[in-house]
Amino acid sequence: MLHVDTAKLLPANDSEPVAMPRLTPAEQPFPKLIGLDITEATPKRVRATLATRNELCRSGGTLHGGAIMSLADIVASCGAFLNLPEGAATTTIESKTNFIGAAKAGEPVFAEAVALHVGRRSSVWQTSVTRADGKLVAMVIQTQMVI
Amino acid sequence: MLHVDTAKLLPANDSEPVAMPRLTPAEQPFPKLIGLDITEATPKRVRATLATRNELCRSGGTLHGGAIMSLADIVASCGAFLNLPEGAATTTIESKTNFIGAAKAGEPVFAEAVALHVGRRSSVWQTSVTRADGKLVAMVIQTQMVI
Amino acid sequence: MLHVDTAKLLPANDSEPVAMPRLTPAEQPFPKLIGLDITEATPKRVRATLATRNELCRSGGTLHGGAIMSLADIVASCGAFLNLPEGAATTTIESKTNFIGAAKAGEPVFAEAVALHVGRRSSVWQTSVTRADGKLVAMVIQTQMVI
Amino acid sequence: MLHVDTAKLLPANDSEPVAMPRLTPAEQPFPKLIGLDITEATPKRVRATLATRNELCRSGGTLHGGAIMSLADIVASCGAFLNLPEGAATTTIESKTNFIGAAKAGEPVFAEAVALHVGRRSSVWQTSVTRADGKLVAMVIQTQMVI
Repeated sequence: MLHVDTAKLLPANDSEPVAMPRLTPAEQPFPKLIGLDITEATPKRVRATLATRNELCRSGGTLHGGAIMSLADIVASCGAFLNLPEGAATTTIESKTNFIGAAKAGEPVFAEAVALHVGRRSSVWQTSVTRADGKLVAMVIQTQMVI
Repeated sequence: MLHVDTAKLLPANDSEPVAMPRLTPAEQPFPKLIGLDITEATPKRVRATLATRNELCRSGGTLHGGAIMSLADIVASCGAFLNLPEGAATTTIESKTNFIGAAKAGEPVFAEAVALHVGRRSSVWQTSVTRADGKLVAMVIQTQMVI
Repeated sequence: MLHVDTAKLLPANDSEPVAMPRLTPAEQPFPKLIGLDITEATPKRVRATLATRNELCRSGGTLHGGAIMSLADIVASCGAFLNLPEGAATTTIESKTNFIGAAKAGEPVFAEAVALHVGRRSSVWQTSVTRADGKLVAMVIQTQMVI
Repeated sequence: MLHVDTAKLLPANDSEPVAMPRLTPAEQPFPKLIGLDITEATPKRVRATLATRNELCRSGGTLHGGAIMSLADIVASCGAFLNLPEGAATTTIESKTNFIGAAKAGEPVFAEAVALHVGRRSSVWQTSVTRADGKLVAMVIQTQMVI
């Protein structure tokens, strides 16, 4: 489910879909444990859907903050990855999350990362996590460093 | 492994160990998926150990940023929980992480959350994540809101 | 220059301009020292212009990060203020800034704060600071608490 | 008052005082407007005192958040500066502040920046701002980039 199949890459508004032949940030062990599904991936925007399985939740039946931050980190990392020169890698150097609303177990959430800035040495990504009804769950801004 | 057994609570430097009879933030589904082990829990400081299992890692064999943020969030939430009045709950409203060094698969990391401030309506927690050799992996500061 | 004259309040896209009869967050001593000019103020969005005077700069002739953070804090505080119930006040409890581009001395910058969330006890504001050419200077997200 | 006179540099616990022959981050126009006084400056720790003049305050007579963030940014920038190789400069790329307590007009506050990490391309600094009675006013963590 996690494999970024190029056939699944939807065209974005402002750029063509990008094939990701190398192992992407979403195809690593921890992202597989979280279980998100990348639905769009371009150098300017990456989207993913996460099924709010019970094991990603707090006892109250809402998505855990750690799962929300993990989702956003993976999606933004994919965006940074798509801007890397050949042979380079990316690493998150800082991430800030504001938690706004709750997401219930059993209902999917949607993450969308957009580039605020893409430089030669680093990029800055803003990722919103929303519910199916459009309500904001969290807003994340983070810096990805080229290494 | 995750159950906060009061027999496991070690005395902290400046306060007595605290029994946590209610379901703690570490005993919920997502914390169980992450798999941390709480080793000390007082209203002023909470410590935990995380085994860096491969499924918590990036493909390069280092602990994933999402797992690091999740660990810190759970540990600080436990601290906020231990300061709650009867019947109240806590939720993270914001969390910022600076990633400093890598943690290798197979080697444990240690999280320590200390209260910077405990108020009636919110508390602020600083959590360091370090390796066995003492090297800093990440520093996290977050706000927990009483609800 | 700093006084929020209701005649200066421009209509926002989605709400009527709001008169601010009480002393606003922009009319306090420190905002006067910074010297911004509020150009729009509604409960959903606040805009301001800052002349990049030399005394707000680094030695290289670019706007200092402290001045940028101060500008964003004042503008978002105005937004939080406009959502307060009678007799309440607002205080910033946390603020995170990502610095993206430089702003040159002598050229104005424009701050726009929009509400990501307005609750009974707190509100979350995202403030962009841009140059006249539209280039992003900084992005700020902060939490304002009702007190 | 702001000039970093090498005679004023106090010895730190773990390193010798460092002379700063180049124009330091504290000797620029905006830091002069804020008016802090550097009392210690080593590559590992920088300390400063700020007189809480009324023009740095909110209308309630407490130090404005913008002034607090500016103070911390200047002090941490000095620390980053002291680790730079010949000919390099430093710039803040992100800064997060948690505001904990109020500082009253007329009473000084004390900032202390310590390096969490000093790398070849960036450094991470944690700055506490405290009152004379030791109470924490704010905690700041930020990343400085070598340029």
